Amino acid sequence: MRTLESYRNHLREIYKLSSAISLLEWDQETTLQDKGMKARGEAIGYLTRRAFDLKMAPELGEWIENLEQDPELSSEVAGSVRFHGMEYRRKRAIPPRLVEEHAVVRSQAQAVWAKARQTSDFKLFLPHLKKMVEFARRFADLYGFEDHPYDALLEEYEPGMTATRLISIMRPLQEDLCSLLRKLPLGEAAQDESLLKGSFCVEKQRQLSRIVLKTIGYDFEAGALHDVEHPFTVAIASGDVRVTNQYDEAYLPYGLYGALHEGGHALYHQGMPEELYELGLQEGSSGGIDEAQALIMENQLGRSLPFWRFFQPLLASVFGEFGEASPEEIYRAVNVVSPSLVRLEADELTYNLHIMLRVELEIGLIGGQIKPQELPDLWNEAMDRYLEVTPPSDKLGVLQDIHWAAGYYGYFPTYLLGTLYASQLAASMKRELTDIDESVEHGEICAFVDWLRRKVHRFGGVYEPDELILRATGEGLSANHFMRYITDKYSDIYGVAEGSEKGP
Amino acid sequence: MRTLESYRNHLREIYKLSSAISLLEWDQETTLQDKGMKARGEAIGYLTRRAFDLKMAPELGEWIENLEQDPELSSEVAGSVRFHGMEYRRKRAIPPRLVEEHAVVRSQAQAVWAKARQTSDFKLFLPHLKKMVEFARRFADLYGFEDHPYDALLEEYEPGMTATRLISIMRPLQEDLCSLLRKLPLGEAAQDESLLKGSFCVEKQRQLSRIVLKTIGYDFEAGALHDVEHPFTVAIASGDVRVTNQYDEAYLPYGLYGALHEGGHALYHQGMPEELYELGLQEGSSGGIDEAQALIMENQLGRSLPFWRFFQPLLASVFGEFGEASPEEIYRAVNVVSPSLVRLEADELTYNLHIMLRVELEIGLIGGQIKPQELPDLWNEAMDRYLEVTPPSDKLGVLQDIHWAAGYYGYFPTYLLGTLYASQLAASMKRELTDIDESVEHGEICAFVDWLRRKVHRFGGVYEPDELILRATGEGLSANHFMRYITDKYSDIYGVAEGSEKGP
Repeated sequence: MRTLESYRNHLREIYKLSSAISLLEWDQETTLQDKGMKARGEAIGYLTRRAFDLKMAPELGEWIENLEQDPELSSEVAGSVRFHGMEYRRKRAIPPRLVEEHAVVRSQAQAVWAKARQTSDFKLFLPHLKKMVEFARRFADLYGFEDHPYDALLEEYEPGMTATRLISIMRPLQEDLCSLLRKLPLGEAAQDESLLKGSFCVEKQRQLSRIVLKTIGYDFEAGALHDVEHPFTVAIASGDVRVTNQYDEAYLPYGLYGALHEGGHALYHQGMPEELYELGLQEGSSGGIDEAQALIMENQLGRSLPFWRFFQPLLASVFGEFGEASPEEIYRAVNVVSPSLVRLEADELTYNLHIMLRVELEIGLIGGQIKPQELPDLWNEAMDRYLEVTPPSDKLGVLQDIHWAAGYYGYFPTYLLGTLYASQLAASMKRELTDIDESVEHGEICAFVDWLRRKVHRFGGVYEPDELILRATGEGLSANHFMRYITDKYSDIYGVAEGSEKGP
Repeated sequence: MRTLESYRNHLREIYKLSSAISLLEWDQETTLQDKGMKARGEAIGYLTRRAFDLKMAPELGEWIENLEQDPELSSEVAGSVRFHGMEYRRKRAIPPRLVEEHAVVRSQAQAVWAKARQTSDFKLFLPHLKKMVEFARRFADLYGFEDHPYDALLEEYEPGMTATRLISIMRPLQEDLCSLLRKLPLGEAAQDESLLKGSFCVEKQRQLSRIVLKTIGYDFEAGALHDVEHPFTVAIASGDVRVTNQYDEAYLPYGLYGALHEGGHALYHQGMPEELYELGLQEGSSGGIDEAQALIMENQLGRSLPFWRFFQPLLASVFGEFGEASPEEIYRAVNVVSPSLVRLEADELTYNLHIMLRVELEIGLIGGQIKPQELPDLWNEAMDRYLEVTPPSDKLGVLQDIHWAAGYYGYFPTYLLGTLYASQLAASMKRELTDIDESVEHGEICAFVDWLRRKVHRFGGVYEPDELILRATGEGLSANHFMRYITDKYSDIYGVAEGSEKGP
């Protein structure tokens, strides 16, 4: 097995370089000051170039081809060969000249987008958007696809997903969610999040984040928690998975659910064995699966009544003013529904309507049915159709997200799929662990997390999402679990008759 | 100038790698937790190996040889060629097999030393010490020397220094310092550092460190301050020079002078232009010159009366209890002399007697006149001769420092030379800036620092120490400035008649 050893050593070398790059980038967000940025950029560029050369090395391609013929590989190695085979072929598909051109156009597009958003000037951004869409379409052609060019872009973030599957998932879901939303008596007494607003000392919020992270089993001996402007989680190496967070002094849920969300990502990466890091599988199964690990901790756990029955005293131990608040009050306060203009401020129910609107438009853009100049009108019409709100400006409408300026075409679906996977996993967990609500209520959060570790985390990127979900839940991806979960929860909170027309 | 461009590019590559390695190591001391150590060690090892290969590249040797013939190089490039020529030849002088053997023996020696120190068991350490001394002597032979094997080891830390020069500096200095020490009425009323002892909130000490660092002109936009166990300063890159510190809740000077000391190192590296980083000259002229930049801030500035006339209100702004203390009281308290057993606890006067004792023994060890087994007795005799104290155990005697276990032969002199350079620089500054005491008293610390920036910092490692000191002060290295400074200061504080017999 000379080939296998060479392959493993090569990936270990990439792992060491990637680990160094990750730390340099993490430090840039958390510690590095302005005057060190130039040298840091050059160091990161240098190491990235070396890692790129290793990932493109022809001998790697040969080892992958040989190993793909080998029926006796362990599931870990087979998963690694599948993933790196895909990566290798995708990297090779794009001529270096085009990669460079794209980087230049992308950098300009991001800069202009930031300015255009500030001044709400879509026309300023339009020529750059056109170029970025053209690049995405060219890349799709070069990657190759069977049915729809969007499929070629999806492969990077969600292997196995297609435009057709997405559309067939989204159509009924949009209808059901809108129908549920119309039923809720919004703006009535049930909606009171005033106890979460006020003035919450940031240092205490940090302390609360640490408590939350410990509660869900985040291992501080294998990571760290730092402040940043845009929170993220990074798996620097096996035994070094770091969480970042941001705090809003006036609004407690921001930092609290930030910690649960990032902590969920971190549990995923802390739960992968070292071998998967060495085999380059530490990124996990897909963007959607990774997001699901965050969302299940944030929503299915953190926005549940059992969680608050346990956690209310801990919250009160840091913020005394919650000593008198009942778990039910907090539960209602963290589950207020309110259709709004901005995705990042959306609640659990309306969030996916925001996402699906973007995915629809993106599929049309990449398929060529939608022209970039049509986006603002289409966006505003869809906002009215789904959420019955109308953006007063493109700044609060089509210009709000960086994704299209930064070339992340195919990324939005991972938010939706994360939601669906999270609900399906939670439903399966409840079937298997019938007393999980009682466990959570008694503070045995480990029961909740251990199930995820066993069914999802330990496999890292060994399986593609479809296979992982089938293994973990016994069935293929289905949106029914999310629809039932969200219907049950909000019907209860808002005291309306249950049942979406097409619920399971 | 093809050669020069190739040479510059090669050094820039080394710079990027070294910068990444420095950050990985800094993070290991400040942030990384236990479970991430293994992967981090492997990443550092991988990058270090790549940097080593670049430093040993035969083409680098050829470029250096060509450039050494070129009379028209800028002083920066000429300094770089000199330094890297020395490094290249030294690295090439030691066969790789010996480097590996040494690393193994060194690692064992350090582990055994730690245990031997704990149990005060010199015999346990002795066989390892013998091996380490033998290695140092073999290395000296391989590096080559004219007069004394110690000269070959000194070259790494203090180019241009020799055993003979050291001895001729130390003999009279030891005599003068001992003579001064005997004159001081120690243990009398003049000695009162009780106001610096008590209970000082660590968070406030951190705040004080930031104030001290800002006061001396440390640029927080080009660095950071973090807690560690063993404080150090690291120049990660141009624009990124980081300080670390440690605090003793019971003893204020520990963290306060730690900040001044590390801040002094940091000013040196922040004061070097970017080109010197790219030319690999950011380590500075020598260990002694680097130490001098720390000591001049810690002692000549931070333990002076003008400084305390300015800084006392700032100290009181953090620790209210100093509101009533006079600058004179604090000045006396931070300048208490007390002969002691342990180098790291020594005051400014006795510290260099500790150092010179080590240097004497080290020269004897490397020259072969002293056998490792004779060290404990020789150590204790010298302690009695210079400081009139007798170690009750080897733990508080010959086993207290890690240097001989870690193979740092030739490093101790940099502490002494740092002291001498600092005094000589300060004396020269006072001659040129006749009102520097008034400036400091009025809080214009920048006058003090700017002089150093102009005379020392901006040159980085362009010049060897002798040339740098000659350029900065107009004369060669002389111990007279230190002897005058220390005699004046302590005669004044302790109210005794001035003058050491051999003072200038």
